[in-house]
Amino acid sequence: METLFALSNGYLGIRGTFDESTPSSNRGTFINGFYETWPLTYVEEGFGYAKTGQTIVNVPDATIIDVSIDGEALDVTSANIRASSRTLDLRAGLLTRRLVWTTASGAQATLESERLVSLAHRHLAAINWTITVDRPARIEIASQLRDTEDAELTDATRHRDPRKARVLPGSALQSIHTETEDHRAVLSFRTKSSGLGLAAGMDHTVASETEFKGTTEVTPHGALVRFDYNAAPDVPFTISKFISYADGPAPDTALADHVLESLAEAKAYRFVSLKTAQEEILAEAWRACDVTVGSEPRIQQAVRWNLFHLIQATALTNGTGVAAKGVTSQAYGGHYFWDSEIYILPFLVFTNPARAARLLHFRHSLLDAARRRARAVDQEGALFPWRTINGEEASAYYPAGTAQYHINAAVMYGLRKYVEVTGDTDYLIEGGAEVLLETARLWADLGYYGARGFFHIDGVTGPDEYTALVDDNAYTNLMARQHLRYAVEVTEWLAAQHPEPFEELSQRIGLTPEEPQAWTRAADAMAVPNDPEAGILAQNDGFLDRELWDLAATPRDRFPLLLHYHPLVIYRHQVLKQPDVVLATMLLGDDFDLAQKRRNFDYYDPITTGDSSLSACVQSIMAAEVGHPELALGYFNKGLLTDLCDVYSNADDGVHLAAVGGVWMNLVYGFAGLRDYDGNITIDPKLPAEWTGLSFSMRVRGTFADVAIDHDGVTVTHHQGPELELTVAAQPVVIGEGSSQRVAIGS
Amino acid sequence: METLFALSNGYLGIRGTFDESTPSSNRGTFINGFYETWPLTYVEEGFGYAKTGQTIVNVPDATIIDVSIDGEALDVTSANIRASSRTLDLRAGLLTRRLVWTTASGAQATLESERLVSLAHRHLAAINWTITVDRPARIEIASQLRDTEDAELTDATRHRDPRKARVLPGSALQSIHTETEDHRAVLSFRTKSSGLGLAAGMDHTVASETEFKGTTEVTPHGALVRFDYNAAPDVPFTISKFISYADGPAPDTALADHVLESLAEAKAYRFVSLKTAQEEILAEAWRACDVTVGSEPRIQQAVRWNLFHLIQATALTNGTGVAAKGVTSQAYGGHYFWDSEIYILPFLVFTNPARAARLLHFRHSLLDAARRRARAVDQEGALFPWRTINGEEASAYYPAGTAQYHINAAVMYGLRKYVEVTGDTDYLIEGGAEVLLETARLWADLGYYGARGFFHIDGVTGPDEYTALVDDNAYTNLMARQHLRYAVEVTEWLAAQHPEPFEELSQRIGLTPEEPQAWTRAADAMAVPNDPEAGILAQNDGFLDRELWDLAATPRDRFPLLLHYHPLVIYRHQVLKQPDVVLATMLLGDDFDLAQKRRNFDYYDPITTGDSSLSACVQSIMAAEVGHPELALGYFNKGLLTDLCDVYSNADDGVHLAAVGGVWMNLVYGFAGLRDYDGNITIDPKLPAEWTGLSFSMRVRGTFADVAIDHDGVTVTHHQGPELELTVAAQPVVIGEGSSQRVAIGS
Repeated sequence: METLFALSNGYLGIRGTFDESTPSSNRGTFINGFYETWPLTYVEEGFGYAKTGQTIVNVPDATIIDVSIDGEALDVTSANIRASSRTLDLRAGLLTRRLVWTTASGAQATLESERLVSLAHRHLAAINWTITVDRPARIEIASQLRDTEDAELTDATRHRDPRKARVLPGSALQSIHTETEDHRAVLSFRTKSSGLGLAAGMDHTVASETEFKGTTEVTPHGALVRFDYNAAPDVPFTISKFISYADGPAPDTALADHVLESLAEAKAYRFVSLKTAQEEILAEAWRACDVTVGSEPRIQQAVRWNLFHLIQATALTNGTGVAAKGVTSQAYGGHYFWDSEIYILPFLVFTNPARAARLLHFRHSLLDAARRRARAVDQEGALFPWRTINGEEASAYYPAGTAQYHINAAVMYGLRKYVEVTGDTDYLIEGGAEVLLETARLWADLGYYGARGFFHIDGVTGPDEYTALVDDNAYTNLMARQHLRYAVEVTEWLAAQHPEPFEELSQRIGLTPEEPQAWTRAADAMAVPNDPEAGILAQNDGFLDRELWDLAATPRDRFPLLLHYHPLVIYRHQVLKQPDVVLATMLLGDDFDLAQKRRNFDYYDPITTGDSSLSACVQSIMAAEVGHPELALGYFNKGLLTDLCDVYSNADDGVHLAAVGGVWMNLVYGFAGLRDYDGNITIDPKLPAEWTGLSFSMRVRGTFADVAIDHDGVTVTHHQGPELELTVAAQPVVIGEGSSQRVAIGS
Repeated sequence: METLFALSNGYLGIRGTFDESTPSSNRGTFINGFYETWPLTYVEEGFGYAKTGQTIVNVPDATIIDVSIDGEALDVTSANIRASSRTLDLRAGLLTRRLVWTTASGAQATLESERLVSLAHRHLAAINWTITVDRPARIEIASQLRDTEDAELTDATRHRDPRKARVLPGSALQSIHTETEDHRAVLSFRTKSSGLGLAAGMDHTVASETEFKGTTEVTPHGALVRFDYNAAPDVPFTISKFISYADGPAPDTALADHVLESLAEAKAYRFVSLKTAQEEILAEAWRACDVTVGSEPRIQQAVRWNLFHLIQATALTNGTGVAAKGVTSQAYGGHYFWDSEIYILPFLVFTNPARAARLLHFRHSLLDAARRRARAVDQEGALFPWRTINGEEASAYYPAGTAQYHINAAVMYGLRKYVEVTGDTDYLIEGGAEVLLETARLWADLGYYGARGFFHIDGVTGPDEYTALVDDNAYTNLMARQHLRYAVEVTEWLAAQHPEPFEELSQRIGLTPEEPQAWTRAADAMAVPNDPEAGILAQNDGFLDRELWDLAATPRDRFPLLLHYHPLVIYRHQVLKQPDVVLATMLLGDDFDLAQKRRNFDYYDPITTGDSSLSACVQSIMAAEVGHPELALGYFNKGLLTDLCDVYSNADDGVHLAAVGGVWMNLVYGFAGLRDYDGNITIDPKLPAEWTGLSFSMRVRGTFADVAIDHDGVTVTHHQGPELELTVAAQPVVIGEGSSQRVAIGS
């Protein structure tokens, strides 16, 4: 529940805890990119290993509002609860709660609360909390802002699950300053090792006809505001609690000032205005990205929950990426992976190009660190870290970390999709080309020409983490090939169209005219292992010769395999955590004909466990394309319900944001059958027979359009922007000036 | 110097420190198999990873004898030293020292000391220490027994060298009891985590015509015995310091009693008797294992230093193995590796079968732990840990640890050599067969039949640690093949010759009649990757397709590669740390003809860095066999001088015992050209042109014989035991009854 009801704005995230401090599973408030560092230690050290761990900090919790009535503290595990409900309003961006409780003293108390994390103001959250009793009672309310001991992490490590965050013993924060006035408290901190600055504050307004006594206490790591009063029957007592956080690269009084300003502003606007602003922003967001699923209200609700988390997680990021769990937990350390480019960016490119651009700019900001990382592994160019917050590699297990060189290609892939779909070629001049060329250089340096003239890339790990340190991973080589070719294409375009910026860039990065030629040569000679008889790709050189894992004979309780078998056992078998070759046939679909895709899917899908939450949407999209509609729907449901039904038994670790992004991809690429090869939009629907329709909106090169699909045809409606040419069910369509076109689908 | 002058008896080891406490590099006293445990933690945990670290404890140091003359403490870094020498007497097993020192007060002091670690009594060491001054002086002597803080380790980790030991912060020991009487002190401890028991004691006798004052102080972690006196000119003052240690599985007053008894006994015998016993034992040891090198006194001295360390390290092991550094340092944690079977055991088999048997019995004692380890990596049978003290896997980096399944075959190889050369087939009944069959089962279960009917073993690491996690490592598969075949041979022999023990064993381990059949089938179908055109083996499937490392272009200061390149970089290249295929052609030499061996050597040797100290002797032996005498001599010298000339810049980390064992192998297998395939002894000398001769002794199936080689022929002399048939320079020779045979070598 704490994960499902989590609220965030991409900068600030608050788990869906109760207002009262107990019970809770993992209380947590997070600021994107606000992290503590710690030394990565290895029993057996190796050259070039990542040196510094980074973990997103669980910042002081400002959500707590404890209440006692006639001396009985509210705790739903022991209280006599008469009615209880919580609602996440996806349209309003509001978590509401209503609780009716009969106290030991015989009073009936009604508690109503609303919580929001502002989508208008990244530094702000607020809670509106009201209690009413039906007879006279003594009420004591304790509203807190409290630094935690990261207890969640201590617990997490007991599971020995590598996906959990590393323990930071005790608090990561050192108190710098505290200040209080009336019912307000602001605490200032610095992180002990990374040296970042944080200010956290809360303020309160009370609306009540009752007299009350308010007191404020503060300690270096906490603040407590008490409201005590004698309640009269049926007279509500309402507290609006305003919460603000600000962080910076170093402690600075400006952070506390920022928090004070935010609190003052929020207090002036009042809670109701924050709600109104929230609704307006969300209305616009939903208009841009909603996907409707005809005749399937339960699926529709689940889809919207996923889209809501996509909206939240990408809303107000500020010089940061989008972490694997957004800002809903500490799992995976709050790190950014390739997920952002492959699973999140497509949604943004088609629904909110400005947010997509922010993600790309963030990647660009890590380029210098990526250059250093390439040197550390003895390569030229740039190598993005497999997992990071601050740009330095934070993966302590290199076979499934640094070895995933394919992250470089993911960056290229996202960049290319952005440029082609949005038409923002300026971005190439403003940094895109630099990222593209530096990352392309890595491939040219990493690979080599073998005896038969092929260009090989050895000793890498592809997307599938059940196979590691292999030669000529097909996915990696195919993506590297496209990377090299696109780098050449952009180089030529830049040289021809923008000679001055090109000259400047070439000078700065020391690009020689021979390099693009070498890239073309390497791309043309790229080794792509395959089995010509079976007509399929080999996941890597030798993969098809390996022993097949007997999935049918594997007990259900030994999944996910990574938690029940030594990596040595997993790695030596043909068994996949997630699609690898099949992902390549999806991302590079125009390099394969349908029969090839089907053969690869039919070989690899049965040996794919789907133990990764990045798996199901890819399996579904390709199942839909190659003609396995039932499989496609099954995988879609798995992805859709990843968190809602706790498919992986770790929904408590926060939202699986790649799976969430995968839901949008699954609907749009899978069932609507959209493709965007070279920026050309084609729609070839694969609507599930069980559904009556599917509609979505998209923004392509400045045009905003709706696409509505049913079993008889596709209607494309123009709303805004220039004319757009696209292909629908193999027919060319041009829309513009508010026009609508319907293409019938032959049956 | 502390390594070169280290003394040990295989149970107790003392580094060659000065008597006075400063200066020293890494003071250290070690007891074989006496270890502390600590949790192995991983930033990213994996299923089946080793859980518990084991590190040999640096036990309380009893060597310290500090001296002050007229208030000036002896420290050779500041004292006015007139003469100084230290001598390691390899015949006497004695480290002697003579130092002449002019004090600030104008006295000339002569210090003479002798130190021994008893080869007669494993629990005992002793120091005889004499000081004489040429004029009246005030002399204060402080003899200590002092627990250290393992400061050496704190220092070691700063290097980030994975081969060093893990830090144990502070002392690993908890004081249990102390007792003193006169000049004696005994301290009792338990290790804090592993719970082992230790008693350490010292006692002193003084021989002097001078009056002196003696005091004894004790703290939980140290004891200090002071001797103060006014020295008369030229009157020597001699202290005999007796030192004893005893350890056990738990603290026990019997340990202190044992120490007290040993001290009392030593005191009764006096230092001179310990010296006499030492010489007698060494005389016998040298008679059994000396190797002489004609006309090369410097090489002879170096050879004997190496042999001396082999004698010491294997002398009085007691239910333990022989660690990578013997008991001369904490590096590699005091762990036992495959080194003992492949590098140490051949020496023992030919020179001291009883010691060889002890090593085999020790391995057998770990069989239950090896069965558990096999289960942890999802296999049947038994898998010996890559590195261990107590039988549990202690390797925290599985790609170059647990993945080295070939350790199972090393155990088989050592066992087979022992049985065939010593003729002790009883050992098979007394546990050898059980080890052999259980370890063979692992191969049968680990491998699988591929599409073309070959039996493959995927995802393992061979002996060469610059290549990891590969399919069909040729070395591993060839050794596994011999392992399976030998297991079948022993099974059949046991069933036919010893049906009752066979029945009992079969029942106990659940051996079915089908299993040996399956082993034969797997052995016959074993995949051995090769390049038929080049006529060489491939180190593993795909190895020969990999990019060649440009060794010529690699700066000297970037060796060893493992300390200067990320493993990802190393693993993807054709570059070797140590022989892999070439080692197979050595150990399984009868599976290859000379031309095959030469082709393999000529391909692999140039890409072998020799960054491992296990490398040079193998390179030399095979260079000698395939006809590269200059290379053979070069590699021999490298191996010979590994520690003496600090070839790897880490001689301070203790004796490279595998290289030391390799010196004997290099002389006997390499230059004397001995082979023992199936237990048949052949001698085909490859005497270096620069040497006039080479002689060694050997014990084969109860026969003790000398072999003397010069450029004209080979003389084999029988001393003891039954007749022995062997082949010398392709001629059959039979010796017996003290006879001597000379076979001329054609030139």
